[in-house]
Amino acid sequence: MADQLIIFDTTLRDGEQSPGASMTRDEKLRIARQLERLRVDVIEAGFAASSNGDFEAVQAIARAVKDSTICSLARANDRDIARSAEALKDANRGRIHTFIATSALHMEKKLRMTPEQVLEQAVQSVRFARNLIDDIEFSPEDGYRSDPDFLCRVIEAVIAEGATTINVPDTVGYAIPELYGNFIKNLRERVPNSDKAVWSVHCHNDLGMAVANSLAGVMIGGARQVECTINGLGERAGNCSLEEVVMAVKTRRDYFGLDVNIATEHILAASRMVSQTTGFVVQPNKAVVGANAFAHASGIHQDGVLKARDTYEIMRAEDVGWTANKIVLGKLSGRNAFKQRLQDLAVELDSEAAVNEAFARFKELADRKSEIFDEDILALVSEQGTHGHLDSFVFVSLAQHSETGERPHAHVVFSRDGVEIKAESDGNGPVDASFKAIESQVQSGAEMVLYSVNAISGSTESQGEVTVRLQRSGRVVNGVGADPDIVVASAKAYLSALNKLHSTGEVVVAQG
Amino acid sequence: MADQLIIFDTTLRDGEQSPGASMTRDEKLRIARQLERLRVDVIEAGFAASSNGDFEAVQAIARAVKDSTICSLARANDRDIARSAEALKDANRGRIHTFIATSALHMEKKLRMTPEQVLEQAVQSVRFARNLIDDIEFSPEDGYRSDPDFLCRVIEAVIAEGATTINVPDTVGYAIPELYGNFIKNLRERVPNSDKAVWSVHCHNDLGMAVANSLAGVMIGGARQVECTINGLGERAGNCSLEEVVMAVKTRRDYFGLDVNIATEHILAASRMVSQTTGFVVQPNKAVVGANAFAHASGIHQDGVLKARDTYEIMRAEDVGWTANKIVLGKLSGRNAFKQRLQDLAVELDSEAAVNEAFARFKELADRKSEIFDEDILALVSEQGTHGHLDSFVFVSLAQHSETGERPHAHVVFSRDGVEIKAESDGNGPVDASFKAIESQVQSGAEMVLYSVNAISGSTESQGEVTVRLQRSGRVVNGVGADPDIVVASAKAYLSALNKLHSTGEVVVAQG
Repeated sequence: MADQLIIFDTTLRDGEQSPGASMTRDEKLRIARQLERLRVDVIEAGFAASSNGDFEAVQAIARAVKDSTICSLARANDRDIARSAEALKDANRGRIHTFIATSALHMEKKLRMTPEQVLEQAVQSVRFARNLIDDIEFSPEDGYRSDPDFLCRVIEAVIAEGATTINVPDTVGYAIPELYGNFIKNLRERVPNSDKAVWSVHCHNDLGMAVANSLAGVMIGGARQVECTINGLGERAGNCSLEEVVMAVKTRRDYFGLDVNIATEHILAASRMVSQTTGFVVQPNKAVVGANAFAHASGIHQDGVLKARDTYEIMRAEDVGWTANKIVLGKLSGRNAFKQRLQDLAVELDSEAAVNEAFARFKELADRKSEIFDEDILALVSEQGTHGHLDSFVFVSLAQHSETGERPHAHVVFSRDGVEIKAESDGNGPVDASFKAIESQVQSGAEMVLYSVNAISGSTESQGEVTVRLQRSGRVVNGVGADPDIVVASAKAYLSALNKLHSTGEVVVAQG
Repeated sequence: MADQLIIFDTTLRDGEQSPGASMTRDEKLRIARQLERLRVDVIEAGFAASSNGDFEAVQAIARAVKDSTICSLARANDRDIARSAEALKDANRGRIHTFIATSALHMEKKLRMTPEQVLEQAVQSVRFARNLIDDIEFSPEDGYRSDPDFLCRVIEAVIAEGATTINVPDTVGYAIPELYGNFIKNLRERVPNSDKAVWSVHCHNDLGMAVANSLAGVMIGGARQVECTINGLGERAGNCSLEEVVMAVKTRRDYFGLDVNIATEHILAASRMVSQTTGFVVQPNKAVVGANAFAHASGIHQDGVLKARDTYEIMRAEDVGWTANKIVLGKLSGRNAFKQRLQDLAVELDSEAAVNEAFARFKELADRKSEIFDEDILALVSEQGTHGHLDSFVFVSLAQHSETGERPHAHVVFSRDGVEIKAESDGNGPVDASFKAIESQVQSGAEMVLYSVNAISGSTESQGEVTVRLQRSGRVVNGVGADPDIVVASAKAYLSALNKLHSTGEVVVAQG
């Protein structure tokens, strides 16, 4: 039987640390459910001790997701670890992931601790965690730039205390496949009790080699867990991308000889959900999930593909969730056709009531737009998913006008806690005027740090999907709005962001 | 002295084969100049025999660019090779790059030739090219999936005929670093005259490993040329990314021990130029050139970065063209300040007249927008760069209105060959109405295949930059427009796309 490669997804923890990618508890829960559907082995749901919001998100995911192991990050101290254990109390299978930096640079400049102090703290923490939970992962932060002799001592000691997974991160994305693979191989050979733990890789993509480094850690180093994120989300250039590492292992099974649990047909839906939730676009030339990943343009290649598909394709688009037949729905489509389409798109709504609400919105859209594409349906469901039951701000109507030589002007009507508010303003453009109109009444004091329009499908007859990212006092939120009118979509996105900014229990970006 | 790693950029050839990325001759020329500024060793400027447009582009680049070697792709036949030689006639240094498929699958299904026929044609072609030019590159297409014995025979024969560079492509992105490196090492050891040619790698990113595969070809295999593209542009998941491979070799010089010529401070400007020209966005978590590549969000990391920068940064943002101080210009800024800013942004305009035109546009923008950011200047110059002197369609003015419950409506005034045209239409949104208004008068019959808005900087007070991609009878063009009003930017982009569609000497996508 082939060895199993454990897929550890950290979209909700390391991915969320990316500037602007912070998510609400409900958004995290929705993504966690999609990760469970993908059959991810371990979901790192957050960093429970970093904020009340993160604690609640880890707790909610631990309660809702039953097939995957749920993990919480914790610094190597009792408070962080106890908080993680508490958040994971109701999990079917929980894991605590504790870490402390071991490179000379990080110990001296960041921790201001001696190596002996770091070793002692690592041991103490794992000992403490061992009383609370069976499944313990330990990471020496900046491990790849750490002194191997010291690292061996730390790793041997934490395994002796009960750590069951040893993760060696390339925290700054400095590794090269050959070097990283041999680094891990060397550690596994030298640490006497190395066979008592599963070894894990965690690579960043600063030099564009996170996937290759991770796989060298597996093939050369003997690691059997890969830490990764959907779309390679993560700080700076991001983490190893789940979809790439999984499809490499599946496509080159002749070389890797490893099994992975992932239900790859849900990859594209997961990619879109993460992209829509965070406002982080996926570039067209992104492997596996980019819009062009399976397309061909040049005459030579088109000819080749016609003659034999495998002349240019090493994977099948369907295997990662690209559907061959994009059935177009319209105003005459019934509830069953709509529901079937949702199933084909791997969208699972929580209840029949949610399906009914989505169907009502679909009919409303179909009245204004003759052809409804898959992208429209995903946008519609995605927008719906962002509505909480306690939304403070609700869009009512909008009128705007712009004309060359005049200042664009917008009237926006929205309700706040059920009270209708009329607002108007001018601006540099109709979108700017709409936002200024809303702000003239709300005075949120938030700063806009991103405004982006996602091209949903080719034509402007499609719905426009807008992401607005607001920042206030260190908190960052993303609002999403969809509408055939881009100005209306923008106003909806702005109100959606305000709802998140005004809700309680939010995630705080700063985790220090 | 360290070995030199030759950087061969194929943004204008393999990159352009990406669906939707086709460029006009003027756009290619602009990018080629930027590649020269980057000190790229070899610029693959196109595929001269594929169309008159591509021939003219290669010729124009061969005449304008003097510091880099200019290369044209050619199938392994006399006509293609002669056409390439003709296009390269005025180059300081020209190279012909000829190729033929050598994998069993491609020979049988695509070429329908026997291996002996392929070998004979490869030899004949190089012999023919040798009479026309000294610098000859030969690629066995799908080389990595070819039978090594056969490949050795082909390579030995073409080197004997005078091929000076041997490029081994992983055409379908199937390779793994260790395997690809050893594949090339094995070929070099077995081919008796292998030391008479420079060996080259050409990797695709379908499994996310193009950079690592290329570098394994260099370190394990002994290749000394890497073929790559700006932003990793290219068919499907794209090619090896120039910025990643160059920064890996520079950052890990301790491991690679190789010199590269690249003037890295021009990387970001090149990335933006290619992205704006093709409408291919760069995702925020893209290594080196993504908006987040050098940013940090989590409290832990922020703290670390404050204490010592190299705790989390292995490269300096300035080294790849990110400027630390974003001086904001305004309506009181003079021509000198503007010109200085252009220089700092590595923007070189062709003439003083072009600077004057850009400055006039800058003043016009400053009247409507209080703070002008670097992104605004780049957008302004980029839009200007797309104007030919023979533009048929010119934007004049626009008025539009949308209101909840009513059908959005737009009036657009534009001129066609100097004659003013008034157009109006309704639509699903104001952008759709504007496009329908223009089409009601132009009736281009083109299909819109992409509409995208690039968030230029955080706030909607910035200019919006819109890309519209149109397709008609197999031709694909990208139009770009910028304006603080997103509807106006959209109309400008649509007219810009129409100009390209109606101009002659265009590049045809199909190359078969």
